[in-house]
Amino acid sequence: MKEHKQYCTGCSHKESINKNISRCPKCGEPMEVELIKEGKINYSTNKGQTILERYADFFPYLDISREDSLGEGFTPLTKLQNLASDLGLKGLYLKNESQNPTWSFKDRGTLLGILHAEKLGYKKIGTVSTGNMAPSVAAYASKFNLKSYIFVKETIAEEKLNPILIYNPKLFKVKGDYGSLYYKTLELGEEKDIYFINSDVPLRVEGSKTIAFEICEQLNFNIPDYVIVPSSAGGNIRGIEKGFREFKEAGIIDKIPKIICAQSSGCSPIDKAFNENKDKIERFGNPNTIAHAIENPLPPSGNQVIRMLKRNGGFTVSVEDKEIIEAQKNLANNGLFLQPASCVPLAALKKLRKEDKIEEDAKVVLIGTGGGLKYTSVFEKYDFRYNEINLEDIKTI
Amino acid sequence: MKEHKQYCTGCSHKESINKNISRCPKCGEPMEVELIKEGKINYSTNKGQTILERYADFFPYLDISREDSLGEGFTPLTKLQNLASDLGLKGLYLKNESQNPTWSFKDRGTLLGILHAEKLGYKKIGTVSTGNMAPSVAAYASKFNLKSYIFVKETIAEEKLNPILIYNPKLFKVKGDYGSLYYKTLELGEEKDIYFINSDVPLRVEGSKTIAFEICEQLNFNIPDYVIVPSSAGGNIRGIEKGFREFKEAGIIDKIPKIICAQSSGCSPIDKAFNENKDKIERFGNPNTIAHAIENPLPPSGNQVIRMLKRNGGFTVSVEDKEIIEAQKNLANNGLFLQPASCVPLAALKKLRKEDKIEEDAKVVLIGTGGGLKYTSVFEKYDFRYNEINLEDIKTI
Repeated sequence: MKEHKQYCTGCSHKESINKNISRCPKCGEPMEVELIKEGKINYSTNKGQTILERYADFFPYLDISREDSLGEGFTPLTKLQNLASDLGLKGLYLKNESQNPTWSFKDRGTLLGILHAEKLGYKKIGTVSTGNMAPSVAAYASKFNLKSYIFVKETIAEEKLNPILIYNPKLFKVKGDYGSLYYKTLELGEEKDIYFINSDVPLRVEGSKTIAFEICEQLNFNIPDYVIVPSSAGGNIRGIEKGFREFKEAGIIDKIPKIICAQSSGCSPIDKAFNENKDKIERFGNPNTIAHAIENPLPPSGNQVIRMLKRNGGFTVSVEDKEIIEAQKNLANNGLFLQPASCVPLAALKKLRKEDKIEEDAKVVLIGTGGGLKYTSVFEKYDFRYNEINLEDIKTI
Repeated sequence: MKEHKQYCTGCSHKESINKNISRCPKCGEPMEVELIKEGKINYSTNKGQTILERYADFFPYLDISREDSLGEGFTPLTKLQNLASDLGLKGLYLKNESQNPTWSFKDRGTLLGILHAEKLGYKKIGTVSTGNMAPSVAAYASKFNLKSYIFVKETIAEEKLNPILIYNPKLFKVKGDYGSLYYKTLELGEEKDIYFINSDVPLRVEGSKTIAFEICEQLNFNIPDYVIVPSSAGGNIRGIEKGFREFKEAGIIDKIPKIICAQSSGCSPIDKAFNENKDKIERFGNPNTIAHAIENPLPPSGNQVIRMLKRNGGFTVSVEDKEIIEAQKNLANNGLFLQPASCVPLAALKKLRKEDKIEEDAKVVLIGTGGGLKYTSVFEKYDFRYNEINLEDIKTI
């Protein structure tokens, strides 16, 4: 069997898949697993089938066993009828990634990264995170009996620490430039034999492919016109686009949706570079947004996201905090409570419809990356009301 | 087609299924939908199939459509290898209900209750809850464009209010005896045409059946010896047992596991009555446990749980708060972070193995009812540690 390679998304330099590399040793751009061009869906009626078993043909470089799972993926694609008709759309769906083992999409990529790390003989894994990735990596490390090293920034909200620490990782609060921390950990990993499953490591991007695969199946292969992805480092949006591309190459679908990169105006380096028609991301000064999970001022996959969007025909958009909160309300009024970052796609869609950048009767999928309970400080933005009554007065309501 | 009935679990009095009744009008015991004795699993490879479509034969009294879903159910059954070998068991699994739309098992029963309410023409639904049921009912009401009336006790922790209010229900904090509130709302519902989907209403119990159905499928119909269910009002444990019973009557499985009712020692009215060989539950004085989600001092289905356990051959057990916290740590060390009530089954299992009430080499399923982020006050019981370092010192770790 042909050995699959990983290649640089910038200069196409190739390396063996059996290496732990995040950045190209020649040009520093992110690496990516070679496109899988053949394969089929391994249909099963068995409710114990894992995402990796179902899409095994698209992961030929991994050893996959059914035990290797916390039950990630196979998340619902929820139809938003009310919002679709309000917005004049033919179809509107939310891929609800909050129904994962640590309640975010990160679990898909964490699993892939850990299987790769195990295959290469690593006993230690790590990550740099302010949001969803930290608890995910800590949880899977515990499941797989590996040691985990989690690096967070000094200013992380206290409410986010305990849901990481519960899984018993080695956790470090780091004083200093957060943007540099990502690169420092890559050096650290090489020195100390720690496999860092950071935001855009090739195997994490591979995990995000399965989001696209599932969307295709859930829509009976009637591919949507647009998929809107809240984006920070850029790993998830790259994976989702790659998933559609692989299904098309394999002949499973016949078109690829336009991918829209949605950011918060308070931290929108990709949107800024794309609109200024630049090839390279610049550091976003003073990021400040309620959507903390996508608050990366210097996205390590930023340049590649721009290259990908140009090839795909997609584009970027950014929205204000107040639009994000409004979208969070809209989703909750349809039964879905998601973290602010996950509400950015709906806010973006409303803006794009207003500006007619998405046409009437389009079919749109929003990616909801994580659950609302992950960031409860957002409630400060709300003015909730309730009533206080005596039991004997209950019939007066 | 034969019309299905609901009947009283106490005196067998029958009523039409097309009525909203929680308690028998003759003896006051809970009602239950007649046992479905024929049916098959409607296998599908379609990832958009809902739990109701898959098990439609077991819900002949409902109109089921694929749109009627937030994506509840089909939760993972996670294998706990490490714990199984520590405890000398052949197999140990956790049914992870935290991967539901509002992150608890309640969503299954809420969906069923709402479909029944809609069929009967109700425009308003309600519930009495201190824990998981309130956000679930509020969320589904929003999804279905119904008005919801949520009643909580005066002393509810503030952290629990916002995750309910986000879905925009009418919420009432009630001053007065909480045990009486359940019965008062039944009267209120009749007067004001509100369908109360309380903890043990027949259709909520029907929702819990699907937990058993899925366990059967996920274990390839190799039925476990024991299923341990954390129990409060008693609706969920009744539904799970009924699910196994219906699959056996339909010839899909050939035995039924022993059902174990697990409670917290700080509120264990069912365990107490069962051990004292009583038929009737008595109010548990001064309930006090970290497992708030199962802190009901007078479980409305308590008497029926005792009748059910006697027929089933199952039994009860209760565990201390410190054992619950220890079990929470054990589960987190296997990658699963669950709310305290959901850790009661593992604590119970450890106790039962020590006392040899569950034999070596048994196969056991634990029911994990809801996610850890629902009750973060529990972190006060932990003594977490982390490190603070400067970026330049990162290689000294």
